[in-house]
Amino acid sequence: MEINKNFKQVEDSYLFSTINKKVTAYQAAHPDSNIIRLGIGDVTLPLCDAVVTAMRNAVTEMSKKETFRGYGPEQGYAFLREAIQKYYLRRQVELEADEIFVSDGAKSDIGNILDLFSTNNTVLVPDPVYPVYVDTNKMAGRKIVYANANADNQFLPLPDESMDVDIIYLCSPNNPTGAVYNKEQLQLWVDYALEHQAIILFDSAYEAFIQEDLPHSIYEIEGAKQCAIEFCSFSKTAGFTGTRCGYTVVPTALTREGFSLHNMWLRRQTTKFNGVPYIVQRGAEAVFSEDGQKETRDNIKYYLENANIIAERLRRLHIKYTGGMNSPYIWMECPNNMKSWEFFDYLLEKANVVGTPGSGFGSNGEGYFRLTAFNSMEKTSEAALRIEHLLKK
Amino acid sequence: MEINKNFKQVEDSYLFSTINKKVTAYQAAHPDSNIIRLGIGDVTLPLCDAVVTAMRNAVTEMSKKETFRGYGPEQGYAFLREAIQKYYLRRQVELEADEIFVSDGAKSDIGNILDLFSTNNTVLVPDPVYPVYVDTNKMAGRKIVYANANADNQFLPLPDESMDVDIIYLCSPNNPTGAVYNKEQLQLWVDYALEHQAIILFDSAYEAFIQEDLPHSIYEIEGAKQCAIEFCSFSKTAGFTGTRCGYTVVPTALTREGFSLHNMWLRRQTTKFNGVPYIVQRGAEAVFSEDGQKETRDNIKYYLENANIIAERLRRLHIKYTGGMNSPYIWMECPNNMKSWEFFDYLLEKANVVGTPGSGFGSNGEGYFRLTAFNSMEKTSEAALRIEHLLKK
Repeated sequence: MEINKNFKQVEDSYLFSTINKKVTAYQAAHPDSNIIRLGIGDVTLPLCDAVVTAMRNAVTEMSKKETFRGYGPEQGYAFLREAIQKYYLRRQVELEADEIFVSDGAKSDIGNILDLFSTNNTVLVPDPVYPVYVDTNKMAGRKIVYANANADNQFLPLPDESMDVDIIYLCSPNNPTGAVYNKEQLQLWVDYALEHQAIILFDSAYEAFIQEDLPHSIYEIEGAKQCAIEFCSFSKTAGFTGTRCGYTVVPTALTREGFSLHNMWLRRQTTKFNGVPYIVQRGAEAVFSEDGQKETRDNIKYYLENANIIAERLRRLHIKYTGGMNSPYIWMECPNNMKSWEFFDYLLEKANVVGTPGSGFGSNGEGYFRLTAFNSMEKTSEAALRIEHLLKK
Repeated sequence: MEINKNFKQVEDSYLFSTINKKVTAYQAAHPDSNIIRLGIGDVTLPLCDAVVTAMRNAVTEMSKKETFRGYGPEQGYAFLREAIQKYYLRRQVELEADEIFVSDGAKSDIGNILDLFSTNNTVLVPDPVYPVYVDTNKMAGRKIVYANANADNQFLPLPDESMDVDIIYLCSPNNPTGAVYNKEQLQLWVDYALEHQAIILFDSAYEAFIQEDLPHSIYEIEGAKQCAIEFCSFSKTAGFTGTRCGYTVVPTALTREGFSLHNMWLRRQTTKFNGVPYIVQRGAEAVFSEDGQKETRDNIKYYLENANIIAERLRRLHIKYTGGMNSPYIWMECPNNMKSWEFFDYLLEKANVVGTPGSGFGSNGEGYFRLTAFNSMEKTSEAALRIEHLLKK
């Protein structure tokens, strides 16, 4: 019996567990404190009416013999895949419905997709980055190299010829920095991947927050179907963090070493997955109805207003930040040269506000701090005010 | 870029996809045929009232700001883990609630658990067997050896000292044979695993069908917490095949090479999974309510009566079979020395009945055929009658 010893590389607990422990300990010691959480990227607005109605109807279907549904297709029901296909058309991206795989969320598929690749591949990950990209590869024992994202490149690293990598993670709008690639920048990545036979794993979980004319999908870039897999999610688009649904696009044109990655993923999913609950898929389908689009866009507008409230206070304090504009995240410089965890403790203790230390996302995140726009407007305003009062002293 | 070439070992399509293609082709050629499916193990009775009510309430909670739930714990809500913990107590099995991990179904976790083990391990799989055990290990490149299950050992292979294996799959009540291990037999497996530091992966997805006094859980066996991981599911217990929920037990006492497998699994799940939908977890909790227990047991009784209807006809035909008694599966010898796929085609064409060829589950399955009890009583009776008419000629 031999354990997968690569787990040793990830023995430390997950970033957000550490934060939770710190906050719980503080709350226990100060039971009267009124803590406001702008930390984890979790939504707070309820599911919209269109989704709720669709899920209610689906529960009723499941309660009757005539309309009950057992096992569905592992890759998702056609009704949902076709709705997603139509959604892509708004950006002139043409996909086949069977290139779309319905998932229980982007996080699962971003980890599970690695089953398709040898552990000998080298992985390029931006720094700072969503910790899941790094940890899933460490667990499998892959070599990881980092692309520096920093103030000099507006947190949008670009490829260069010194890079020799096989798998490239990109997240745009970015978690944690809120930075968004434009078309020309993404074209550089696609060109690099095509030239080096690399694969881009493109995380577009925050695409619905884009307000300016910037790419929502990697497939808006020429050549991307030959080199990229895209992961998206209803979590942030429609408040599905506790409802669990997303989708992964693996184009049929994507091949390496004579293997169709599309066929491999289909084989992986039919063998190690059994599909998303029917009720949830009906809820997700309703996101694309006329009412669903209106209601979910209203919710996104609400969160973007929250981001603006925070940004406004930071501007008054002359604190530099990125994001908040096409993203629910604000990535700020810690004031007075504080380190990330130092500022975390300071903010928790002096203002009872919880954020996420930038260093938790990678070494380039040291000295930065992430605030999210997902709390209620009332609490966000209150937290932003507390931050301003604390820091203007 | 190097692809995971182990996928070459599983290029053939999944057993049930092949069956579906054959049936679809037959139906297209014979549009008037009235095909009855006793093939795939999918339930047909709707979700019971207790589950439906709980899910309706949960949808309502998700529709209101005050009761909305975002991200839940990756390992499942305490309310569900504690309900499962209590359920185990009926068999005098004491578990900690945090030894129980809520999953989106046994199939996912049976595949994903392999992340914890080196690919150098040798895997023991019974033959015949649920194809997922084999395919998931082939995809990762592990060496697989088989334990012969056949009429001589009543399809219940036991360990012997010639075996040198690290990971052992057991499924009881068995899919596909319906055979169930008794306590003494399971003790032999646990003793083997303890002595050889092997790990048993115990699939108890069909435990709710056990009517006689036989073990429902591997943890009824002394020493099992030091060598076994158990996978269970609401799919067959409560008709959740399209609702997706199960649970995996990884005892804290389970360690190998100084690693806690419990901690490794927690780390795997917090990194590559984001939990089961809140609505579904509330539905699963309701399975353990008084009404839920009564209603789900009534459904199981219904399926077991179906099994008995099939068994009755086979007895009249003097065809040998196992299962059907503590299991929804009937594993029959193909009549007239037919091969499994030969009998599949014969039954489809001459009786319009779909079953599953035994050879699809492994070489020892050749000459056998699996029928399931999950269709309606009306259709099951009709199919059993057609089989009797066809075979008594």
